[in-house]
Amino acid sequence: MPKIGVILSGCGVFDGSEIHEAVAVLHAIDRHGAQAVCLAPEMELNEINHLSQQPTGKKRSVLMESARIARGDVTPLAKVNGADFDAIVLPGGFGAAKNLCDFASKGADCTAQEQVARVLKEAQKAGKPLGFACISPAVAARVFGKDLGPNLTIGDDKATADGLEAMGATHQNCEGDGIVVDNRHRIVSTPAYMYDQRITSVFTGIGKMVDKVMEMARQPAAV
Amino acid sequence: MPKIGVILSGCGVFDGSEIHEAVAVLHAIDRHGAQAVCLAPEMELNEINHLSQQPTGKKRSVLMESARIARGDVTPLAKVNGADFDAIVLPGGFGAAKNLCDFASKGADCTAQEQVARVLKEAQKAGKPLGFACISPAVAARVFGKDLGPNLTIGDDKATADGLEAMGATHQNCEGDGIVVDNRHRIVSTPAYMYDQRITSVFTGIGKMVDKVMEMARQPAAV
Repeated sequence: MPKIGVILSGCGVFDGSEIHEAVAVLHAIDRHGAQAVCLAPEMELNEINHLSQQPTGKKRSVLMESARIARGDVTPLAKVNGADFDAIVLPGGFGAAKNLCDFASKGADCTAQEQVARVLKEAQKAGKPLGFACISPAVAARVFGKDLGPNLTIGDDKATADGLEAMGATHQNCEGDGIVVDNRHRIVSTPAYMYDQRITSVFTGIGKMVDKVMEMARQPAAV
Repeated sequence: MPKIGVILSGCGVFDGSEIHEAVAVLHAIDRHGAQAVCLAPEMELNEINHLSQQPTGKKRSVLMESARIARGDVTPLAKVNGADFDAIVLPGGFGAAKNLCDFASKGADCTAQEQVARVLKEAQKAGKPLGFACISPAVAARVFGKDLGPNLTIGDDKATADGLEAMGATHQNCEGDGIVVDNRHRIVSTPAYMYDQRITSVFTGIGKMVDKVMEMARQPAAV
């Protein structure tokens, strides 16, 4: 049974993983008869009140909040090697741009969280496909932009796309339920809630992204 | 566009709404071209660390945490009338048995949260169909058991089923991705994560439940 790492960043669109996207990823992986292994970095996040969308000034644990989406079963990123998975997928949500990297505040000057960068590089070097939804291609641009210059999409928001290109990625506009496939680097991305779209469209786009990632995972790269 | 109330109880299986179930409900409603209106009571929940599954001793707001699943858009139950919706659906999670009622600690002696009971009764009296997943049929048994004696399922757990029957409901065993339909009272239920089953099965069962609820919503009852 293929084992797919899913890197979460908390639980809730404004300070963690976007919940609908994360569940769409888990659903699509299970649909392929593969095992989703939920992963998260051990770090704090800045809590956002999801009613007012304002910071509360309090902190929460990214790992502990991610466990809510994972029904308790989440592994610290520090304990895994990216090469041990058949693929790795990142849902979006502001947590991807605030916790997995700090693109939300620093744009193209952002830094990727250390364990996230390590695990993604290990997987990529081992030829494993990678999938990114919503704003999480910013993490891919930071980690792989200079070395690989991957093709990615975050939809059609010019300022965000410019940020990804400034980090060395090539941005390709994409409709809400579509995907952009970088066959050379085995990286697939989909805009998801980068558009204000219906949950069924988000599921369609993420479903296509996971389908492509699973297809690549079944055809190992010559590394 | 039909308007379906979705009553949430927080965000996370051990102290709130089960996240996969809640998203499956929202996805199924959108698939029918209907509008999901997320609702939650204004009350506190006892926070559970989802890694250790132990209480932290801290409180969180049910409404504020439910807003995470609702992407910020959640309405306090106190502000709505159940009769104004075309149907009402409750996902499960311990929040349904700890916050929407206290079945988790009191069993058949439980009390339903006041606003939850009012909104469900208003909808039922107006002939609107009601859908329940996982442990949330315990809320239906408490609110309607004595007056209506509805047919419900929580899967096949005897102790839980006995609790529902002690409140006046009739329990019917049901497979994981199946539904139990009470046509007379327009109440549909599905076991979801009452079984340790795959997320795709949970989506299948909840999809069938919402399909039936939507079918009933399109054929108004003679009230």
